[in-house]
Amino acid sequence: MNDKLKYIKEDETIDDLQLKNLNLIQKKDGFKFGIDAVLLSDFACIKKKHKVMDLCTGTGIIPFLIYGKYEPESVCGLEIQEDMVDMAKRSVKLNLLEGKVSFLNEDLKNIEFLKKLEKFDVVTVNPPYKLNNAGIINPNDKLAIARHEILCNLEDVISASRVLLKDNGRLFMIHRPERLADIFTLMRKYKIEPKRVKMIHPKMGKAPNIVLVEGQRDGGSYLKWEAPLYVYDDNGKYTKEIDSIYWRA
Amino acid sequence: MNDKLKYIKEDETIDDLQLKNLNLIQKKDGFKFGIDAVLLSDFACIKKKHKVMDLCTGTGIIPFLIYGKYEPESVCGLEIQEDMVDMAKRSVKLNLLEGKVSFLNEDLKNIEFLKKLEKFDVVTVNPPYKLNNAGIINPNDKLAIARHEILCNLEDVISASRVLLKDNGRLFMIHRPERLADIFTLMRKYKIEPKRVKMIHPKMGKAPNIVLVEGQRDGGSYLKWEAPLYVYDDNGKYTKEIDSIYWRA
Repeated sequence: MNDKLKYIKEDETIDDLQLKNLNLIQKKDGFKFGIDAVLLSDFACIKKKHKVMDLCTGTGIIPFLIYGKYEPESVCGLEIQEDMVDMAKRSVKLNLLEGKVSFLNEDLKNIEFLKKLEKFDVVTVNPPYKLNNAGIINPNDKLAIARHEILCNLEDVISASRVLLKDNGRLFMIHRPERLADIFTLMRKYKIEPKRVKMIHPKMGKAPNIVLVEGQRDGGSYLKWEAPLYVYDDNGKYTKEIDSIYWRA
Repeated sequence: MNDKLKYIKEDETIDDLQLKNLNLIQKKDGFKFGIDAVLLSDFACIKKKHKVMDLCTGTGIIPFLIYGKYEPESVCGLEIQEDMVDMAKRSVKLNLLEGKVSFLNEDLKNIEFLKKLEKFDVVTVNPPYKLNNAGIINPNDKLAIARHEILCNLEDVISASRVLLKDNGRLFMIHRPERLADIFTLMRKYKIEPKRVKMIHPKMGKAPNIVLVEGQRDGGSYLKWEAPLYVYDDNGKYTKEIDSIYWRA
């Protein structure tokens, strides 16, 4: 463990992903990955031959989870915030995954840059959820950037995915149910057809608070609704389904 | 009861709606109303001062359920099939609801006709669910017309609603979850903003098979997801929630 400490700064910590000995460098008091990343990497369908791009990747939790679960040919994460990318790149070294997991420090709104990249079989994204209309937000606040549409919005994310995906490539997104009309409308606008939806409910009988959406670039129109997932049981404990996702992760 | 028999033909039957002594004339071997009509009339928010239009009304089940539950100023049902409208009009007489519940025999694609009507506070619709691409369908088959998009499709229904609704008037629709991307996209196209969704699941833990959607003409964008409704419990009996909807009906 002492050996690994050379990769981190004083205000950082190394978190064990509980998956094939993978670790992630995160800020001690910054944005920490949560259940969203675990749900999205479980929902995505990824094969060993796939090349994967994760947008809004932050410190890279989703690329590492995806690599750990599926071992695809490669996973690249794109992130606008330089210090996050710096942490993610050190996590690559820490995990000895050079050549398999990589990170780019770029703005996903830079479409000309995206067009020069190779095409991807799969794009994953856990974008900022909240509309940038909630009053005064400090634009230097990294938590706010992760949660509010300050540096990119839903349309930016979907139009970037259109450019990055191969023909018939798949987009896997996690978002909030109240944005689903926006998601479907924008996916159709950029010809990424909604194909599969899974709703996550905090408990049985409660309204859903997370949605997982799969889209296919130029796909035919048929939308499959999956069985819902309940996070907590009546005793406030994780349900078996959630336990098994963490176990599979 | 014998008195009421004068309103029906030999191949018809009078069904008790279990609601304020209301009855409905239906064909003995034709399309019978089911849980959809009950769910939709429960989902709709209707006040006593409202004027309501029900599209694809068939033999008029939804107008009668809505009148029985909410007693709005008036409910009108529009239906393209003449024999259905004939039955619905006889149900009006049977229930002594002249001046309160009425029916029009018209094609909802006849926008010029719709424009000449008064505007409505509420439009309800239980449209044909299935795309008209499922192979050979007999266009004279009344069951097929009720279920497949033969005489009207989703876009026809939503564009008709746009014309019929007052400013900020509400559309309440029941449909199938696999069409929800179509529903949201078309509602946005015709500036009827999706405001509220409720999913109906056959059982807890199963994928939803019915969706209820509320839209508002020129409404602001915020989509509320309601708690889901489970139809059957683990013993194959109606859940309390369904019982209470039938009881409230």
